[in-house]
Amino acid sequence: MKNNTQLNALDEHFMNIALQEAAKANNKVFPNPKVGALIVVENNIISKGYHKCYGEDHAEANAIRKLDRPITNATLYVTLEPCSHLGKKNPCTDIIESKMFSRVVIGANDPNPKASGGAEILRNNNINVVENVCTEKSKKLNRRFFTYFEKKRPYVILKIASTLDGFIAELSGHSKWITNEKSRQSVHKLRSTCDAILVGRKTIEADDPSLTSHGYGKDPKIVILDSNNKINPKSKVFKNEPIVFTSKDLVKDPKKNTIYMLKKLYNKSYQTLLVEGGGETLSYFLDSDLFDELHIYYAPKIIGNGKPLYIGNNTLTKDYKLQLHKVEHFDHDIRMVFYRDN
Amino acid sequence: MKNNTQLNALDEHFMNIALQEAAKANNKVFPNPKVGALIVVENNIISKGYHKCYGEDHAEANAIRKLDRPITNATLYVTLEPCSHLGKKNPCTDIIESKMFSRVVIGANDPNPKASGGAEILRNNNINVVENVCTEKSKKLNRRFFTYFEKKRPYVILKIASTLDGFIAELSGHSKWITNEKSRQSVHKLRSTCDAILVGRKTIEADDPSLTSHGYGKDPKIVILDSNNKINPKSKVFKNEPIVFTSKDLVKDPKKNTIYMLKKLYNKSYQTLLVEGGGETLSYFLDSDLFDELHIYYAPKIIGNGKPLYIGNNTLTKDYKLQLHKVEHFDHDIRMVFYRDN
Repeated sequence: MKNNTQLNALDEHFMNIALQEAAKANNKVFPNPKVGALIVVENNIISKGYHKCYGEDHAEANAIRKLDRPITNATLYVTLEPCSHLGKKNPCTDIIESKMFSRVVIGANDPNPKASGGAEILRNNNINVVENVCTEKSKKLNRRFFTYFEKKRPYVILKIASTLDGFIAELSGHSKWITNEKSRQSVHKLRSTCDAILVGRKTIEADDPSLTSHGYGKDPKIVILDSNNKINPKSKVFKNEPIVFTSKDLVKDPKKNTIYMLKKLYNKSYQTLLVEGGGETLSYFLDSDLFDELHIYYAPKIIGNGKPLYIGNNTLTKDYKLQLHKVEHFDHDIRMVFYRDN
Repeated sequence: MKNNTQLNALDEHFMNIALQEAAKANNKVFPNPKVGALIVVENNIISKGYHKCYGEDHAEANAIRKLDRPITNATLYVTLEPCSHLGKKNPCTDIIESKMFSRVVIGANDPNPKASGGAEILRNNNINVVENVCTEKSKKLNRRFFTYFEKKRPYVILKIASTLDGFIAELSGHSKWITNEKSRQSVHKLRSTCDAILVGRKTIEADDPSLTSHGYGKDPKIVILDSNNKINPKSKVFKNEPIVFTSKDLVKDPKKNTIYMLKKLYNKSYQTLLVEGGGETLSYFLDSDLFDELHIYYAPKIIGNGKPLYIGNNTLTKDYKLQLHKVEHFDHDIRMVFYRDN
């Protein structure tokens, strides 16, 4: 009989393959997480599946559907706890039958209270359930989803477009354009993966932006921060019924306001919020510690004066816990993506 | 007989291979350029060589030495005009004998007046000489060398270490450390490839740096800009007999000063100058248009105030002609290298 260490190593091996399956998913699964599943009989992988599109079959169902013969005593590896609730599809726990599966190995438990509890149901059906195998990797793959449910706030992405010397606009507010067209297209794609987009009033006034995805996918819900109730209702964004936070909602304390706004957006089920500026709004979030990613675009321009990307007063010892995740370039522009590890 | 178009395409083909040879060279060849050579008989490459180290055999000699049989009617491809002067080695034109070579194809002419004239000597020796094949590539490979001779000034590299929001120090001048150790090591390596390093007096006062390569190779000559004659002669840099430009040399016009300093350094045969700051000195060079590369390091810090990397007043239309050449990262720090295309 195998000892525990061997079992753990094998389970991790198969879970890593299930994670590779999960990673095949794209943004079509939102607001669901990316999930992969693997069916293993006598240490042979006999089927794989992943959740491809919101409203369609989950990973477990896809793997089971692809089986070409009856199985017994199989192990199911699934990167996220099988769901227990009736959503767009029947609960996954219903299709994981003990006749077929003697063992289910789970990457991470489902943080969504509506869907969790699957592990317990499977145990009650006499299946041997192993939890928390490669948990961190499963959570990392679904950072937005886990942050939303675990922290009970949207996953917050800050986006800045800056000159090399840290300015997001000329002193006049003029900022069209700092970055090039390809950089801006990448922002439009990023918007299509977010549920909501937040800007301050001054950004609306300076640019009168549409804040849409420009055809790259779904448009995020527009959210405006207007603490002085001065927004012009003829601004383009009003075509899309934005959420406007005004003095009715806001107080003098930026951190309290940030918490308040995020709570409201959480309650409206916005899983991911993109904060696009300007400097004041970004500084709100930077100083609140309530953000998860920073996307900073640099154009090869140096202007010496203008609107700074951050309004505050730190020393070099201030640590925003920014971990470089990715660097890309669009012609001569650069995009850096930092994850914030809390 | 082949027509001209075919000849040109073949010559370019072989010159590109010679360029690949040249690119194998590293900084040991400085102040010589990187050169590759190829010997071709009846469209077959029978030998290759490149210049490996200053003071050792040139590319042509290396290719000829490696021949394992006598040749006649060969074509020699060489990325830079064969030298005509007695340097550390005999002139290359002496060893390119017409008994062996009926034809020599040259990438770029040698801009060094001491070494140029090789093409004419070869022609006088009854060798068919074709010039300017893949010239731009040959020049690009030796940007520093060509800039020095063609513009009669050192090749200028500006280096900046900045926070994400464009500050190179706290307001106090404190800047130890913005970037991480790996970033700083890469700067030390960069220094070892430069002949001289320039900083302003305030940088000496704020950091008292050694400005050496910290063991990574040769130390550049230290050059200090001290327009108010205030430098403390006890600063560390004085251990290495720096060149100090004072009010005797300098006027009120930064551009004139930049031209003056570069002229002096050119006359002292410094091929590459690294400008390490601070903000005032960098701004001198940025606004003079007299620079060739910009290396900017960003650390994932945001401080909101401090010493800016650039002191000036441009709009977004100001074009420094920065072309992104390379992006690297050192843990969570980023280094961007821009070439300036004049």
